[in-house]
Amino acid sequence: MIFVGERINGMYKDVKKAIQTKDASVIKDLAQRQTQAGAKYLDVNVGTAAEDPCQAMRWLVETLQATVPTPLCLDSQKLDVIRAGLEAAGGAHTIINSTSGDEAKLDVYMPLAVQNNAGLIALTMNAAGIPQDVDTRLAIAATIAAKAVEHGLDMTRLFIDPVVLPLNIDQNQPRYLMEVMSQIKVISDPPPHIMCGLSNISQMAKEKQVKELINRTFLVMAIAHGLDSAICDVLDTALVDAAVTADLVLNKFIFSESYLKAARM
Amino acid sequence: MIFVGERINGMYKDVKKAIQTKDASVIKDLAQRQTQAGAKYLDVNVGTAAEDPCQAMRWLVETLQATVPTPLCLDSQKLDVIRAGLEAAGGAHTIINSTSGDEAKLDVYMPLAVQNNAGLIALTMNAAGIPQDVDTRLAIAATIAAKAVEHGLDMTRLFIDPVVLPLNIDQNQPRYLMEVMSQIKVISDPPPHIMCGLSNISQMAKEKQVKELINRTFLVMAIAHGLDSAICDVLDTALVDAAVTADLVLNKFIFSESYLKAARM
Repeated sequence: MIFVGERINGMYKDVKKAIQTKDASVIKDLAQRQTQAGAKYLDVNVGTAAEDPCQAMRWLVETLQATVPTPLCLDSQKLDVIRAGLEAAGGAHTIINSTSGDEAKLDVYMPLAVQNNAGLIALTMNAAGIPQDVDTRLAIAATIAAKAVEHGLDMTRLFIDPVVLPLNIDQNQPRYLMEVMSQIKVISDPPPHIMCGLSNISQMAKEKQVKELINRTFLVMAIAHGLDSAICDVLDTALVDAAVTADLVLNKFIFSESYLKAARM
Repeated sequence: MIFVGERINGMYKDVKKAIQTKDASVIKDLAQRQTQAGAKYLDVNVGTAAEDPCQAMRWLVETLQATVPTPLCLDSQKLDVIRAGLEAAGGAHTIINSTSGDEAKLDVYMPLAVQNNAGLIALTMNAAGIPQDVDTRLAIAATIAAKAVEHGLDMTRLFIDPVVLPLNIDQNQPRYLMEVMSQIKVISDPPPHIMCGLSNISQMAKEKQVKELINRTFLVMAIAHGLDSAICDVLDTALVDAAVTADLVLNKFIFSESYLKAARM
């Protein structure tokens, strides 16, 4: 499982304040704790914290790279913010988060990823919005995969995200998503990664305990259908334990009594 | 999710002693606690506790029926013990646990179930043993379903069990099992139930916490592939919570903040 730590995001109060006051200690602490918890990447999202999001992204990237070796997942809907992040990363491996599945956008983001030694998260949505059915999501996934081949982005660098919505918007969505994941896994050999922004699923729940239970249950169900990466709260130990155990059940590594500890080293 | 409480089994020391000393209090306590925890059936297995297993089965059934309204799952490899249990149940709905997928055995157990108002658990194994692949398990499942039609056992009374083995025997088995479950779900409309004896999966683990984590992770993954019933430790609250949440994700019921409580009423 490729865990992308979600916590360095300007939508969190502590991070927002840290960005605004240039308080590196909060960012460094989150970087270290998420890395120790098993994050393979750290998501970096300025949110609405800064008047100049490009400058804020640069500061975050520099602060993070000076703190941990963990590669970053540059998270913005604005291309100039992504470019600022890539520039600050100075050629270090990153993931660009994200593009939609519109061909015109893919033609911009795919070369950008290739030129910058980056992975790319591509969402199975387009200008028409988020599809409500399996087939349209799959058609967009196929377009994304074809564009990766066209632009020379290695499948192992491509993360297709079938877009997780809160459970209360349409409770049939998770079933469709699992079906989509199973099918994306056979789009190509090797297949692209399948990614999701996990915490969305439980947005409607009020209690933290309920949110966490829904998050980790859906995560395990999705892993059973091919999901192999997620932007999620890696500081939630039960979540990481569940995902690691799902990988164990899928024979991604051999059982030993200390497998949970081994997965974090 | 149809939970079958596993605890009234002579392999547990407290139950073994209770059977041997005819101490009804232990049995009654386990019956009540499992029912409150969400068990829809109580498994009843004499194990090796009694010299006369038929008599012990009768005593257990009578003790349980005098205590809780929860129907029983009569668990024995011996036909005469099953018959003793059915007789003691006096026509109350039960599940017979279990027959293999051998045609000759199905021709005995199917009519027995029909005549006794009982469900039937049928394992996807035969005289040749437990198949190591998907296709042979599916072929046996098809035989089981065909025999149910032949003998007039309603599909909603049939529980096909693809046989869960401990993870360390072959770590590829869980993936095969999930594939088999997905396929069994489309064998007929309505489909048969898909059942498993859950605790087997973690038999090799030493620590209780590790066992429980593996059990509930595999359970959730299996539910994502169509499993809808399990013989398991319903007194493990985290296990029941996870399974109920998996049903929520599959839209088996509508989200409300108190869905966990509602599932136990």
